[in-house]
Amino acid sequence: MKMSKSMISTLREVPADAVIASHQNMLRSGMIRKLGNGMYAYLPFGLQAFRKVENIIREEMNAIGSLEIKPSVVVPGELWKESGRWETMGNSMLRPKNRLGQDLVVSPTAEEAVTALVREDLSSYKQLPINVYQINTKFRDEIRPRYGVMRGREFTMKDAYSFHATKEGLDETYLDFEKAYFRIFKRLGLTVIPVRADSGAMGGSGSEEFMVESPVGDDTLIICPDCDYAANTEKASCATDYFLDESCAKTATTLQPQEVATPNVFSIDDMVSFFNMSNKNFIKALVYVAYNSSLDLTKAPGCEKLEREGSSTEKTYPVSYFTVLIRADIEVNEAKLAAILKASDVELANDEDIQRISGAPHGFVGPIGLNTCPIIADYSVMQQQENGTYSINMHDAIAGAGKEGYHVKHVEPGRDFTPWATADLRTVIAGDKCPQCGGTFYSKKGNELGHIFKLGYKYTESMNVTFLDETGKNKTPIMGCYGIGVDRALASIIEEHHDENGIIWPMSVAPYQVSLIPIKYTGEMQEICDKLAAEMQKVGIEFLLDDRNERPGVKFKDCDLLGIPIRIVIGAKNLPNVELKQRANNETELIPVTDVTQKTLQIIQDAISNLNS
Amino acid sequence: MKMSKSMISTLREVPADAVIASHQNMLRSGMIRKLGNGMYAYLPFGLQAFRKVENIIREEMNAIGSLEIKPSVVVPGELWKESGRWETMGNSMLRPKNRLGQDLVVSPTAEEAVTALVREDLSSYKQLPINVYQINTKFRDEIRPRYGVMRGREFTMKDAYSFHATKEGLDETYLDFEKAYFRIFKRLGLTVIPVRADSGAMGGSGSEEFMVESPVGDDTLIICPDCDYAANTEKASCATDYFLDESCAKTATTLQPQEVATPNVFSIDDMVSFFNMSNKNFIKALVYVAYNSSLDLTKAPGCEKLEREGSSTEKTYPVSYFTVLIRADIEVNEAKLAAILKASDVELANDEDIQRISGAPHGFVGPIGLNTCPIIADYSVMQQQENGTYSINMHDAIAGAGKEGYHVKHVEPGRDFTPWATADLRTVIAGDKCPQCGGTFYSKKGNELGHIFKLGYKYTESMNVTFLDETGKNKTPIMGCYGIGVDRALASIIEEHHDENGIIWPMSVAPYQVSLIPIKYTGEMQEICDKLAAEMQKVGIEFLLDDRNERPGVKFKDCDLLGIPIRIVIGAKNLPNVELKQRANNETELIPVTDVTQKTLQIIQDAISNLNS
Repeated sequence: MKMSKSMISTLREVPADAVIASHQNMLRSGMIRKLGNGMYAYLPFGLQAFRKVENIIREEMNAIGSLEIKPSVVVPGELWKESGRWETMGNSMLRPKNRLGQDLVVSPTAEEAVTALVREDLSSYKQLPINVYQINTKFRDEIRPRYGVMRGREFTMKDAYSFHATKEGLDETYLDFEKAYFRIFKRLGLTVIPVRADSGAMGGSGSEEFMVESPVGDDTLIICPDCDYAANTEKASCATDYFLDESCAKTATTLQPQEVATPNVFSIDDMVSFFNMSNKNFIKALVYVAYNSSLDLTKAPGCEKLEREGSSTEKTYPVSYFTVLIRADIEVNEAKLAAILKASDVELANDEDIQRISGAPHGFVGPIGLNTCPIIADYSVMQQQENGTYSINMHDAIAGAGKEGYHVKHVEPGRDFTPWATADLRTVIAGDKCPQCGGTFYSKKGNELGHIFKLGYKYTESMNVTFLDETGKNKTPIMGCYGIGVDRALASIIEEHHDENGIIWPMSVAPYQVSLIPIKYTGEMQEICDKLAAEMQKVGIEFLLDDRNERPGVKFKDCDLLGIPIRIVIGAKNLPNVELKQRANNETELIPVTDVTQKTLQIIQDAISNLNS
Repeated sequence: MKMSKSMISTLREVPADAVIASHQNMLRSGMIRKLGNGMYAYLPFGLQAFRKVENIIREEMNAIGSLEIKPSVVVPGELWKESGRWETMGNSMLRPKNRLGQDLVVSPTAEEAVTALVREDLSSYKQLPINVYQINTKFRDEIRPRYGVMRGREFTMKDAYSFHATKEGLDETYLDFEKAYFRIFKRLGLTVIPVRADSGAMGGSGSEEFMVESPVGDDTLIICPDCDYAANTEKASCATDYFLDESCAKTATTLQPQEVATPNVFSIDDMVSFFNMSNKNFIKALVYVAYNSSLDLTKAPGCEKLEREGSSTEKTYPVSYFTVLIRADIEVNEAKLAAILKASDVELANDEDIQRISGAPHGFVGPIGLNTCPIIADYSVMQQQENGTYSINMHDAIAGAGKEGYHVKHVEPGRDFTPWATADLRTVIAGDKCPQCGGTFYSKKGNELGHIFKLGYKYTESMNVTFLDETGKNKTPIMGCYGIGVDRALASIIEEHHDENGIIWPMSVAPYQVSLIPIKYTGEMQEICDKLAAEMQKVGIEFLLDDRNERPGVKFKDCDLLGIPIRIVIGAKNLPNVELKQRANNETELIPVTDVTQKTLQIIQDAISNLNS
């Protein structure tokens, strides 16, 4: 491709809203242009790289036997009503009406469409497993689209779906996808952090996210430097870290609980001053309100009069209250709490409700004698064992007294109160210890690039997909889904591979592998340049020939910005040698014209096979 | 690919709404499934063919130096407001609002988006010409989607756009596209009928449609069997066919017009009976109302008081009236009339307006003395020459008298009335004569597969695209657009290549080139089948291996339905020979196993090179 025919248009300045390296470089190198807020067009140079990313994903999907399909992007709203997500998807789903006033959806994802397709043709277990994918346009009406194609409204996603007769079949395919994902990211030159939903063994997990580090990431990751543990902060566990402090009692006290008047003690800091002890000795008691909990609370304290509402299959308590006990130096992770309570949402109760439930204002809530709501104790306080007994992780503690202006000393969990349940509710932070190996966590911001997920029966049940098993019985298939954001993967490659001068493409996704730059595109330099171009064409090297009438400095600057891996400069003073420079390592060498094509091919092949290995 | 892993699901029955061969075969062979009205999903087998069509189009676009881009499918409504099409596109454009209530468009076409992109980076004539294309999702909310993907709501289109400094540049690129389109359709195995907007020489035309014959086509084509003339009935011209009848006067009469009482004569048929003459002797006078005509009517009869409305650049008459004269045996083509009148729409005036304008009711309207509105005479009556004189094509004619109950005999056009303008307003039908060669037209129903069109300055002007020319002056580029419907091309291939047993794929787009069918997939037959599969894999033959435990008859039937070009049956009784059968010509031969891969490869290569030639 000649530069003059390539429509490549580089920019010196970028708009102020381009704050991250990938967004800036994609604009500067003319890969993309903005059509609207969160809506981008790929120009030819950008599309070259985009298609390479797409093809690597496609190859690896095909390699594990996933079959490509192409559902429509716009689908009837009916499908989403069947699954129930018409109600739950909220404003991020674009819902145009057609000329007859019927509801349509511009697909944000395709579980519904693919489930409907499979339902139509599936009759026998012999057709299973079914494993399909698409690489197609999606739209999510993000509240705040930003960072270019990293978080756009319209984007391209590879989304795969599998259907199985058995859970074991799903486990097997799930592992195929996990391996394929590692291969894909390796080939793309991306360093991913795999984050499992739980820290179980391979295949035991029901969900795994593939994250890339990003200073503007949406997620906070907790990572162990010593083993493979990595978790989203919303779900991270850590090793129990009892007795971290000299002041903490290590064994049970025999002293009885003793009330202490603490009229001016309202915060944990106040307690530290008043009692002159580290906060690791205090039990923090927090009253939470939970919405739509689907726990069975019929025998829970204070819940005798609560009524469940909802359909026969899913009854929930619209509102219920819980008191959470946790060691005062750590924070409750509300996402974990909501999961434990099987609630749609949780929040701290308001002052009035705290007083009503606990008999005391916030700061004086206490566990002893509290029987108006279930108590959930974090493992930092105590942990119920399988045999029903508790391991007690705080001794001789101080807690609120359950009446205003008083605290209680010598509180022994298990002796002085018994929780309704114990759970891991802790917000894990950098510095906490890894539950697998004891390593000290650090944390990073990250973006999700891919996600593999065992969906279970959610869609196949709600949309009535069945098949006849070997014995002729009607069964529902179990389903998995597997996504990768194509645009985000492309932007992430640039995030990981750039310097102040521009992009540094991994060979596998470089729009062009080689830049041929004649100092002047005239006379002998032009002749040799054209000869090299013809040679390279022949052996399948993708090159950009800078035939512009520009100063060499301008050409070199553009070449660096565009990130072409190999630069070959044809200058009169070096002939019959040409200069070969690699963008990634700045290595420069003079090579005879006669050898340069072969040498270039070798560098390309080595780089690709290194990424593929 | 093994059949058991291919997800191919054939149907014996198809829904009643599948009335054309391509729709039926695409459903029966499991190429597509319906997700909603006019919204289809391609299943793996169908997508294989779809991608081949797409790639052939892509290759030919790349070959003429068009560069692929990928604008977003959803674009801001603002772009359409800039071009003015937000108002004119009507209900077929899907216009969702985002969460902020802003207007969006699910692109039905992309002139606006591409013009906006070019505007952003274009500054100098040196960047021109620009020639880009996309192969992307489009949506048009058709009133009555039907015939499967032939007329869907969502579809994939290859749409290309070019921008030029000069008209000559556009002409050149337009010709490149014309040639590329012929190559594309040839490679797809499609017989197209090129239909030019005017009958000018190559490159002189501003628009050309590439049609395929279809019994359910949207368009009616007028085709000359003797030359390359073909036109949409909306625009077709024909040779003048004067004096076709013995009863028609061939020279001017000297008799003066004479009123005849015709109290019970209301229709042309009544006139034929009353005057006992062929209808070729009568001048039909029709009063039309035109909406938004942009003609200059300031000096036209009866239009002195009409006021123009609209912007400074485009002033039109909201309503104006015209009387059309045409020989009574032929029909007025209202599309042609609207074009001549530069009107957005024309229709026959209502009774009240006819009476008011002409002084007579419909049937008695006459040309003589009519000065309340402009008269437009069809060439069948008379034709103004370049020097201002008329050639008179009817003599001694009979027309309405302009008062109820009377007609006039001995009417001489030019002597007794002078039209404001003359024009070709005739609806051309089969049997009319070709204006190029005099051949006798036949007509066909057709569907548009592709369209190339010189857009001119419509978008670049309305959206303010400029560049600096060689002399540093600001100029507006001229634009062309070039579309091909990918789904429709695919469906049309099946329309042209099928029989009662199923599809007969051209080799270039066959999802698989070969079907390997063991009579039973066991023992020696399985061994040989696997060996052939391995050999074919090695040389790049795309095969489907029918490993199902089905009767041979079922396998053969499916193979015919799927339309695989080459069928190789491995049966114990023929070994060491296998049977090779070609779907297209039913030729069957027994070939030694050792030769069959080479023979198959030869057939494939011959077929492809034949399509490419």
